[in-house]
Amino acid sequence: MRAQIIDGKAIAQQMRDEVAVEANALAEQGWQPRLVSISVGDMAASELYVRNQQRSAESAGVQFEARNYPEDISLEQLTGVLQGLNGDPRVNGIIIQRPLPAHIPVKTLQKAVHPLKDVEGMHPASIGNIVYNDLALGPCTAVAAVEILKTLPLQMEGLNVTVIGHSEIVGKPIAFLMMGLGATVTVCHHMTRSVAMHSRAADAVFVAVGKPGLVTGDMIKPGAAVIDIGINRVDGKTVGDADFDSCAEVAGWITPVPGGVGPVTVATLMKNAVLATRMQKDHYRDSYARTDV
Amino acid sequence: MRAQIIDGKAIAQQMRDEVAVEANALAEQGWQPRLVSISVGDMAASELYVRNQQRSAESAGVQFEARNYPEDISLEQLTGVLQGLNGDPRVNGIIIQRPLPAHIPVKTLQKAVHPLKDVEGMHPASIGNIVYNDLALGPCTAVAAVEILKTLPLQMEGLNVTVIGHSEIVGKPIAFLMMGLGATVTVCHHMTRSVAMHSRAADAVFVAVGKPGLVTGDMIKPGAAVIDIGINRVDGKTVGDADFDSCAEVAGWITPVPGGVGPVTVATLMKNAVLATRMQKDHYRDSYARTDV
Repeated sequence: MRAQIIDGKAIAQQMRDEVAVEANALAEQGWQPRLVSISVGDMAASELYVRNQQRSAESAGVQFEARNYPEDISLEQLTGVLQGLNGDPRVNGIIIQRPLPAHIPVKTLQKAVHPLKDVEGMHPASIGNIVYNDLALGPCTAVAAVEILKTLPLQMEGLNVTVIGHSEIVGKPIAFLMMGLGATVTVCHHMTRSVAMHSRAADAVFVAVGKPGLVTGDMIKPGAAVIDIGINRVDGKTVGDADFDSCAEVAGWITPVPGGVGPVTVATLMKNAVLATRMQKDHYRDSYARTDV
Repeated sequence: MRAQIIDGKAIAQQMRDEVAVEANALAEQGWQPRLVSISVGDMAASELYVRNQQRSAESAGVQFEARNYPEDISLEQLTGVLQGLNGDPRVNGIIIQRPLPAHIPVKTLQKAVHPLKDVEGMHPASIGNIVYNDLALGPCTAVAAVEILKTLPLQMEGLNVTVIGHSEIVGKPIAFLMMGLGATVTVCHHMTRSVAMHSRAADAVFVAVGKPGLVTGDMIKPGAAVIDIGINRVDGKTVGDADFDSCAEVAGWITPVPGGVGPVTVATLMKNAVLATRMQKDHYRDSYARTDV
């Protein structure tokens, strides 16, 4: 094996340590960062995520409250809950756990979260701010994938990057974030004629499709970085979208699944919690100063 | 010459005709679409644009009011003007003419325009909605460039597209719009190692940089479409970013400058005016219905 395996857990630990310093500083000023997680109905599918987030929050000095609402809650009631949380100064970030019941459209909920409390970075205004290179709260998975690439000894300006997958919350935001860093970015997806043609030309490949084994070693330029965002269950094991063994023979760096992008994503959520708290604090101060004039 | 020259004026005329039908229908329901243009200080640089918009509005059945504020207006006063227009139901769209004096940051003004009245499609939420493939009011130039490509007999799904220029209001939105249509998109810019490598592989090239002669015929795949968004003054003539003569020898289709993307951009502004008016009408009805329950 040629590739260096990127240690997502170590990167996440360092991020949490940095977050903890800031969270403590904010707490001392009366702004203890606090997240509220909302799940609806049966929590079997989201329980593991919620538990991970809770643990990560504790280690990062962020308070975490997991709320579960009954399956038959109406969209109107749930929007009302969010409005209450938007207006509550002791809540600094809101997480909407998926899946949601069919009668609750996830986008409607995401838009109902106040942009200053949008720690998942899902609100259209949050996404638009990324495009404007004015990064406040970015979508956690995309930010995490890019943060991982930034730990490598690669010059981002002019880097040829291929993103495989063009979802709104992962593929596209990675593309803008990398453009913002000066990379030349190609975005491929299921309609692309030849993904390999683009991936072979890339110094770094991000893959976020949800198809195990989609990217094989012959699709990678020798020495390139492979950032694997896929999470798939195959024969009881968790694997990514890259065929790890063949890619690791060719790539210069590769993220494992699990232990790569996943832990950094949860740590990014905590970083967003601290960012959101600081933005709310500034907003509060600005509003307060104005009435004082 | 091999390329077919795309007639932007004809495309714009057809768009205005369609807009006029909708504008009249809205007017009959008491919702006459109306735009307000804001310019600050010396209007020499923006006068031509404003006059073009005014003429296009008249021909599309959209009312147009051009306001000019004195050079020394404060940001606070101007934001107050925008808040007034945001709240005025007889105003359906607000246009911020550039350039602005140095003490007025354009992004702050763009964010102060209510998203439902953002006919230029510049608000972060408008940009974010494009990323979400949930197109409401898109940035006019980007939408116009894509609309022009859509008039050609090309299958958008799987099309290899290269966008040269990664500005927030042109290059990046073109990239998302084309991704939304199923194209495989590469975005190049001044940090790209070899623009030609990417442009030669493309079935369609968008160029929006502001450098005359940047794209030459040897950078284009035979038969490809060249959509030229540049507007440059050279020796008293207006030219695009593509070297027209050499590109036209190779390309299948090419937009002229002037007479290509420019007129379609102004027509797109009018289309946005009608879209904005309809969204405001729906929003008003929804709000009214709710108080009626």
